[in-house]
Amino acid sequence: VAVADTKIAKSGADGSLIYRGYSIQDLFEKSTFEETAFLILNGRLPSRKELAVFTSRLRRRSHLPPEIYKVLRTLPRGAHPMDILRTAFSALGTIERGLSPDDRKISIIAKMPSLVINSYRVVRGKRPVEPKESLGQGANILYMLRGKAPSAFESWVMERVLILYMEHDFNASAFTVTVVASTLADVYSACTAGLAALKGPLHGGANEAAMQMLTKIGKAENAAAYVQQLLAAHEKIMGFGHRVYKTVDPRAQLTKQLLRRLVAETGKGEALYDLCEAVEKVVWELKKLPANLEFYAAPVFHILGVPQEVDTPLFACSRIVGWVAHYDEQLQDNRIYRPDAVYVGEKGLKYVPISER
Amino acid sequence: VAVADTKIAKSGADGSLIYRGYSIQDLFEKSTFEETAFLILNGRLPSRKELAVFTSRLRRRSHLPPEIYKVLRTLPRGAHPMDILRTAFSALGTIERGLSPDDRKISIIAKMPSLVINSYRVVRGKRPVEPKESLGQGANILYMLRGKAPSAFESWVMERVLILYMEHDFNASAFTVTVVASTLADVYSACTAGLAALKGPLHGGANEAAMQMLTKIGKAENAAAYVQQLLAAHEKIMGFGHRVYKTVDPRAQLTKQLLRRLVAETGKGEALYDLCEAVEKVVWELKKLPANLEFYAAPVFHILGVPQEVDTPLFACSRIVGWVAHYDEQLQDNRIYRPDAVYVGEKGLKYVPISER
Repeated sequence: VAVADTKIAKSGADGSLIYRGYSIQDLFEKSTFEETAFLILNGRLPSRKELAVFTSRLRRRSHLPPEIYKVLRTLPRGAHPMDILRTAFSALGTIERGLSPDDRKISIIAKMPSLVINSYRVVRGKRPVEPKESLGQGANILYMLRGKAPSAFESWVMERVLILYMEHDFNASAFTVTVVASTLADVYSACTAGLAALKGPLHGGANEAAMQMLTKIGKAENAAAYVQQLLAAHEKIMGFGHRVYKTVDPRAQLTKQLLRRLVAETGKGEALYDLCEAVEKVVWELKKLPANLEFYAAPVFHILGVPQEVDTPLFACSRIVGWVAHYDEQLQDNRIYRPDAVYVGEKGLKYVPISER
Repeated sequence: VAVADTKIAKSGADGSLIYRGYSIQDLFEKSTFEETAFLILNGRLPSRKELAVFTSRLRRRSHLPPEIYKVLRTLPRGAHPMDILRTAFSALGTIERGLSPDDRKISIIAKMPSLVINSYRVVRGKRPVEPKESLGQGANILYMLRGKAPSAFESWVMERVLILYMEHDFNASAFTVTVVASTLADVYSACTAGLAALKGPLHGGANEAAMQMLTKIGKAENAAAYVQQLLAAHEKIMGFGHRVYKTVDPRAQLTKQLLRRLVAETGKGEALYDLCEAVEKVVWELKKLPANLEFYAAPVFHILGVPQEVDTPLFACSRIVGWVAHYDEQLQDNRIYRPDAVYVGEKGLKYVPISER
């Protein structure tokens, strides 16, 4: 069922994906995080000057206010990183009340990497690492995670994943953001709700779940037996299948290329790559389900040294851009979401006092 | 568009509302918060023993863990009560990881009054007031707000409003909860998203907005001129109109009766009642929009001494029951929400390098 019009992005059953009219392949090869974010937010590619201004606004707003660290220090160590991130992001909405609508958008996009990485660090008892204003979104994630600068190649790899993750029309989190926007709640409320949806293992949680599965399978030789066992038990195979893409997820193809380059360049993860290919092959043969973005993003994150629990929060560093675009689009011609449900329950029951029950 | 089946509740264009087959009029007159909550969660009225067990489980779980107070003490004083509530509720999800699915539901319903009232108190620099295990949900709200026990009549009034607020099929917040549930995210995530939606002035925020409007109008004689002015400016009249109810909102009728009894019993708010009636009359004459629940709930809260900013959070003390029921219902036969959108944007654009833009 089509619930709305959109000008932001279009995923096609034929395995195509466009952002604002540009193919994902072109943006993956040629663009940057900041340029693609500008495109998604503004509907067109920026001029050199516009990009410089946009980038500088983002960098200057990338630091977290001290209150956020105070909130983080009160949360229990064992908590799930997505629960921590959702709480810290929600707290940001209590703090940044004075910002203009436009500055709010810049702020939440700019702060997401620090929210993701430093909320993880602080709750695990580590010192926070301030983002570097000289680094882009992808490089800053790796820098804050490690406490030292990543190579240009690693930053490029992370930025490619962010571009692929940025937007995907009415996925569950973007749709959640849209429904909340339709009540005229503010953008912090709407994106807190987006983070709530992103946690789900059928949505953003799938990358972490896919990596857990790969770890369990262990090596390529075990792939066939493991997948057969899952299918026999009618269990879901994490990282496979998509509501829109029936034969190929273009983002999975691009991430697979990226994984291959990463393995070649770093010499790490050759066995993991073989394992992924073996699982992909057997799931296609037995179930005709294509690998999706999550499946190949997980091993890329793994080789880059991202702890498995941060896989899902990382997604938010990029998808926040799509959420903001959907928030804005909904408000351009707003009507509150209040869908009908077909009532199939009891009718006409007579209330009996409790003394007679 | 009907998006799902439901057995929980049904609002009808004829001005009817049933919860699990029972009319809202019957439940309003004869039931209690705890009994109606049991009905909505379990699909049937409880036996005496079941109700006693359910009530005792709720009361024992009504206290907030100390970490929540630590989180609240880090938030800025001027923050919006809904932002504070959403953040505190989200934090609860980082803490209660060990509970069973059933205990989680009991816990979030039981804790909502303390979350609402004590988050408001603490962020405003006041001491928290522990809920009394001897009091019901309605009485406890007034007790924690005032620091002293309300009269039996006042508690009965508050409980009536909670019964009316408890559930309303696929309203925006329940629908948000449902979409998040469909990703298989946990119930804390889903209800945090529900709170995000509830803040919107087109949804839960309408009761606060209605009270602001009533305060601005001031007295019954000004009603006609004020409403005419709003209509001339094509502005929304807060507390009027509903997607389902076109001529009468049964909950507004019942709350109006309640307001009349409250005025008669306490001797307070006679002018406010006259003002409400005058506004209702002129909006119906000029625009054929019926008053909705928010419009008459706001003055009831006002006479009970609820600060205006707590009007919207109060809603959550009751609607949380409906959210939990929708969460459960979605998981009984789950499919992730991923609606289609009609792409009406640009296509086939060619990427031009930034040096050539």
